[in-house]
Amino acid sequence: MRVLVDGRGQDLLEVVDRGLQYGDGLFETIRLRDERPCQWQRHLDRLACGAGRLGIPSPDPKSLAAEIADAAHGLDDGVLKLILTRGRGGRGYRPPDSPQPRRILLTYPLPLDPLGSWEEGVSVRYCRTPASINPALAGIKHLNRLDSVLGSREWSDPTIAEGLMLDPSGGVVGGTRTNLFLWDGRRLLTPPVDRSGIAGTRRALTMDLAAQSGLDCVESRLEPADLSLARGLFLTNAIVGIWPVRELAGHSFDLTRLPWSLLDAVRQAAQTPG
Amino acid sequence: MRVLVDGRGQDLLEVVDRGLQYGDGLFETIRLRDERPCQWQRHLDRLACGAGRLGIPSPDPKSLAAEIADAAHGLDDGVLKLILTRGRGGRGYRPPDSPQPRRILLTYPLPLDPLGSWEEGVSVRYCRTPASINPALAGIKHLNRLDSVLGSREWSDPTIAEGLMLDPSGGVVGGTRTNLFLWDGRRLLTPPVDRSGIAGTRRALTMDLAAQSGLDCVESRLEPADLSLARGLFLTNAIVGIWPVRELAGHSFDLTRLPWSLLDAVRQAAQTPG
Repeated sequence: MRVLVDGRGQDLLEVVDRGLQYGDGLFETIRLRDERPCQWQRHLDRLACGAGRLGIPSPDPKSLAAEIADAAHGLDDGVLKLILTRGRGGRGYRPPDSPQPRRILLTYPLPLDPLGSWEEGVSVRYCRTPASINPALAGIKHLNRLDSVLGSREWSDPTIAEGLMLDPSGGVVGGTRTNLFLWDGRRLLTPPVDRSGIAGTRRALTMDLAAQSGLDCVESRLEPADLSLARGLFLTNAIVGIWPVRELAGHSFDLTRLPWSLLDAVRQAAQTPG
Repeated sequence: MRVLVDGRGQDLLEVVDRGLQYGDGLFETIRLRDERPCQWQRHLDRLACGAGRLGIPSPDPKSLAAEIADAAHGLDDGVLKLILTRGRGGRGYRPPDSPQPRRILLTYPLPLDPLGSWEEGVSVRYCRTPASINPALAGIKHLNRLDSVLGSREWSDPTIAEGLMLDPSGGVVGGTRTNLFLWDGRRLLTPPVDRSGIAGTRRALTMDLAAQSGLDCVESRLEPADLSLARGLFLTNAIVGIWPVRELAGHSFDLTRLPWSLLDAVRQAAQTPG
């Protein structure tokens, strides 16, 4: 693993940094291919959106791209994690008027994925831990991720690839680290991200590619009963790209009923550098 | 400011620490008097409760007390912040099976408080930022505090001491850094902390002292309309102890109607070492 803090090779940060003190910051987890970030513009857009909503100055895209090129050097297939914190200062929770944000880059090789292949699909369960609700924080990829941490602690069976989290009102939000799509045979449905959850880069990619291929994709509240009745389900994130769901909490899905041409397009685009 | 990490004088932490990566940890903000922590047992109990709920091993109370005595040396009147993170490791959100937690202690002098004296009360407003809802995280003092950070950004008027936050359903949760009590002339009411908010040490102290003096104190959903009709309001936290509310969003309160003998008892006990 390599670590850069504000462009310098170091793996330590001040404990007074607000990223640690309050989770006051954002992150992006980025797939690297051929030493380049995949779907970079979507990551950059979400980072800028999150920074705007939290009031953290966005890093300059050109310097950031140069730093990422530096960090990604030599990694044909890997992961880059970018953390942007509000830096130090302020008075308790109240941030300083002119924050000096910190940029942290970590790169590591792509983790092996023993959980099932692209064609075979993955097995998924439900989590008891609810996803947090806050309209002011929903959608952005901030550093307050204890709900996903607790959700991820709920199983140790290595054949389970992901856990689905519900909000306290019983609406499915998505996986601990993935967005969820439901295929009903006519259109795609995916939970909204305006009260809970994260607006994933591959979620946006899937919605764009669905529109381009003439498939309707709508945001809709989904409950566990809706998922059981689905023709098929799949999950997306930046590292795995797309995972068809073979089984959810004991219920099996016939993977042949999924709209594979869309899934294949998402899979390809998700891991394309640029 | 002095900083100790796992008992050693250093002010840096690994960027891979889960406290930074996910806000995966807890903290306590502790008033120091005469080089000793005030209401120490309540802080220790809350920390142990939070550690149990998150699945982080609790530090040994004796070693922790010794470390705090070391950190507090020479501080007659000050603040000690204790952070407990889950340390490094795990696979993404999923924590390691045997976490090696980190203890971070920061001490600093008591901040001057220009916001109004104990007798004069303080002026308070409402925040637009909602408080996060998550029954699995409510009550404990974890490191996911972006809601309070955003709430605290909403005003710059130095005569406003605190902002009250509502949950997305319109229930008052408390201040950005305080618990709220309402006095209706017969009893005290305070918002529950089972879906949102923090179970403050001085909140628990207030409830205990009210019971000892024969005053009813109940947890109850409170909305802004209830606050306007109150005989009086007050706020509590570990650093200020207790703040009577003189004004809320333009509405003035007659401070003489508050149950001052209770307030005085809370104020004294809040800043008593031990």
